[in-house]
Amino acid sequence: MQTKVIHVLRNLCSLNPGDTLLVGVSGGPDSITLLDLLTKLDFHIIVAHLDHQLRFESSIEATRVRSFAEGLNLSCIVGSEDTRAYSQQQALSIEEAARELRYKFLFEHAESRKAKAVLVAHHADDQVETVLMHILRGAGLSGLGGMSYRSMTNWHDEIPLIRPMLGIWRDEIESYCEENELEPVIDTSNMDTTFFRNRLRHELIPRLEDYNPRVRSLILQMSDTLREDHAILASLTEEILKKCLVESSPQHIAVNTEAFSAQPLGLQRYLIRLVISKLRPGLRDIGFQDVKRALQFINKPPKSNQADLVAGLRLQIEADRFIIADWNAELLHADWPQWSGKTLKLAVPGVTKLDKNWRVVAKMVPKKHHFIEMVSANSDPFTAYFDIDPLVTPLTIHTRQPGDRMTPLGMTEGSVKVGDLMINSKLPRRARLRWPLVFVAGRVVWVPGVRQSAQYAVRETTETILKVSFEMKE
Amino acid sequence: MQTKVIHVLRNLCSLNPGDTLLVGVSGGPDSITLLDLLTKLDFHIIVAHLDHQLRFESSIEATRVRSFAEGLNLSCIVGSEDTRAYSQQQALSIEEAARELRYKFLFEHAESRKAKAVLVAHHADDQVETVLMHILRGAGLSGLGGMSYRSMTNWHDEIPLIRPMLGIWRDEIESYCEENELEPVIDTSNMDTTFFRNRLRHELIPRLEDYNPRVRSLILQMSDTLREDHAILASLTEEILKKCLVESSPQHIAVNTEAFSAQPLGLQRYLIRLVISKLRPGLRDIGFQDVKRALQFINKPPKSNQADLVAGLRLQIEADRFIIADWNAELLHADWPQWSGKTLKLAVPGVTKLDKNWRVVAKMVPKKHHFIEMVSANSDPFTAYFDIDPLVTPLTIHTRQPGDRMTPLGMTEGSVKVGDLMINSKLPRRARLRWPLVFVAGRVVWVPGVRQSAQYAVRETTETILKVSFEMKE
Repeated sequence: MQTKVIHVLRNLCSLNPGDTLLVGVSGGPDSITLLDLLTKLDFHIIVAHLDHQLRFESSIEATRVRSFAEGLNLSCIVGSEDTRAYSQQQALSIEEAARELRYKFLFEHAESRKAKAVLVAHHADDQVETVLMHILRGAGLSGLGGMSYRSMTNWHDEIPLIRPMLGIWRDEIESYCEENELEPVIDTSNMDTTFFRNRLRHELIPRLEDYNPRVRSLILQMSDTLREDHAILASLTEEILKKCLVESSPQHIAVNTEAFSAQPLGLQRYLIRLVISKLRPGLRDIGFQDVKRALQFINKPPKSNQADLVAGLRLQIEADRFIIADWNAELLHADWPQWSGKTLKLAVPGVTKLDKNWRVVAKMVPKKHHFIEMVSANSDPFTAYFDIDPLVTPLTIHTRQPGDRMTPLGMTEGSVKVGDLMINSKLPRRARLRWPLVFVAGRVVWVPGVRQSAQYAVRETTETILKVSFEMKE
Repeated sequence: MQTKVIHVLRNLCSLNPGDTLLVGVSGGPDSITLLDLLTKLDFHIIVAHLDHQLRFESSIEATRVRSFAEGLNLSCIVGSEDTRAYSQQQALSIEEAARELRYKFLFEHAESRKAKAVLVAHHADDQVETVLMHILRGAGLSGLGGMSYRSMTNWHDEIPLIRPMLGIWRDEIESYCEENELEPVIDTSNMDTTFFRNRLRHELIPRLEDYNPRVRSLILQMSDTLREDHAILASLTEEILKKCLVESSPQHIAVNTEAFSAQPLGLQRYLIRLVISKLRPGLRDIGFQDVKRALQFINKPPKSNQADLVAGLRLQIEADRFIIADWNAELLHADWPQWSGKTLKLAVPGVTKLDKNWRVVAKMVPKKHHFIEMVSANSDPFTAYFDIDPLVTPLTIHTRQPGDRMTPLGMTEGSVKVGDLMINSKLPRRARLRWPLVFVAGRVVWVPGVRQSAQYAVRETTETILKVSFEMKE
């Protein structure tokens, strides 16, 4: 038993002698066994106990845990929280509230005491029950893997949660207590976690053992291998997300739809989960149905290109990408030219700054034969050539006004709405609003990245050419 | 229901109108429903029924299936096998024997009738039972995924096994039979598969539904996603095996140990399973313990570098690789020089052929100053330079005799066993036995690839140098 605990702490969790460990101790057989095992190793142990105020004798138990710890010469932190009040306040079940308060308490003190890890005493039977609970309630690979020996949680960015006794059975713990004359400080039999878990423990698992007496250890083994499988898929997903990622901020993540859709269905699911968990690190149990709905939306977007996802996130399709974002996140591409000011006179020759790291470079170029070829071969939608003398006709930049129209280069008569041109070229609304347009005498002569007007286009007779480029500084 | 079946056949299995499908029909509600659904689609259907001779009325049932098929204007193949005799003969359980005979029968006829697929009528409840059975008996990801809509089996290399009704519940099938006035040809209630499966169906699953009424559909959904997960890991494993593979034949697969060990534990498990399944395509359920033992052996090989694995396979460690092979496979590296004949006179100048695509090229080279540098800079262990006049002292090649010794170049006195030299340079025993050695006057002067003797080595005073190279033709 001690060997197993040492293996977990040293090999799986890379802890070293002398490291400070904060141990959550309820006072039941599991946690006092863990404590007893740990005192025989050369770590620096801090005992932490939270009184959940759920039973009238709980404050007495807290006192007992404290004196138990003192008997072992260990420092002990005792906290107390009104779990019922918190559960009402946060609209959580009592168990959820107790769990949240407890882990918050443990990690807060782990941080202030500079502990390397928080340890809790979940054991193999807890693990089997957890896995069964996941099966009964519906789970994917990550749920079937159950709890991990070591995991990073939402409670702290750097301090891990460690469960060194996941491979040890309740029987073994009870025998250990007897052999070592350890007396549990509290009687856990009448506070045994939840009703559902209790039914599993006392009814379902014994029944499963009728089918196969080894079922508990088989489920434990199964969860071990599935955790490994999940870890592989998780790291593969991280790798692939890097490849599909277009941009991200704390409020949003944009993924290239084509690269995403090229992945097998299973990985698409993992990618969606990963993106959600990056934006909502605290979210537990992202539903299978939510993920399914998101995939349907991405693969066959309905007319409205925006949908509610989970936990205040929205999913929207935009040009070559889909975006998962906070409902009220204001998304602005750093790689789009934007202008949020009023009318701006274009410096010619010169450089005119726009929002973020965009700028407009304009200069006069004398006409030469091969230059006309260059003009007609221009494939950069953010560069245009004009037959304009800026001294005579100054150029300005501002954003679109309702009713702006132009005759695109290539059309000989008639005109189209500038707004329609932008929509047709798949510019999303949020980009269109502040899209900088080039105006001459109150008329749009160029929608950069989209189309140039026929007016002022370079002709055979043009003597001096005005070259204008929208550029982004990397 | 029909939509689901069409989706599986068209989209998941890429079958086209007009394709010939061989359908396994027991005559129970599941298979006649499948048959009824299929007759409404534009495939060419062949009915196949095997009489397992397990119940006295089975031949009558076979006749009924035949007339049922004829009533639908479908051609029907009826076979008959003595399942009990086969089970004794092959030391299989009755169910295993029935299963083997049935699939053999279905695929043999699928091939002779040029069918594109074999279809069977497993449904969603079968799937849930299968998954639970795997959980109770211990399973990894592949078992938890249950049966696939489409799978390649050991029964045929090209014809897939398709289960179009895996997403349809028993209830739905029964209602369908009622609505369409289909009467099952045989009563399946008294022949319901196995005892264990029956207990699951009638006892365990209803009990699990007490915990969660939706448990069946949750398990079904779980198996769907786990199959996807498994498919991803399986293709990842194939990819990685390609990278780690050193060599393979139908009898053996050699894997680079270093590349293998660099993989995460979970993938190492998959790699071992994949290698085993490549050598033993028929093997079902490769045990978790077998895989664990193999990994321990590879990561910490004991003194004996060979161990029993499963199903008549052995695992052995050899230099930079481990090999999984038939127990009696004779492993010979194509990339090792070997000589299985008697004494061979070396042609000088000339080429002497060895086993496989190896040969020895020998020629005289006049000494030049820069050539001496070349001799001392020689880094090819399969090339050596000698101070020998072959007209005076002819060279021969044969394999090692007990007691062969030599004084390696660099040593000034004493001698070592040639066998020890080879062992120290990590040549496996099976390579050593036929390793070609170069002899002069009954003494070893060179162990190619290993060490040259001090005797006959090139010196300052050497006038004409004999260059000998062992070469492999690509």
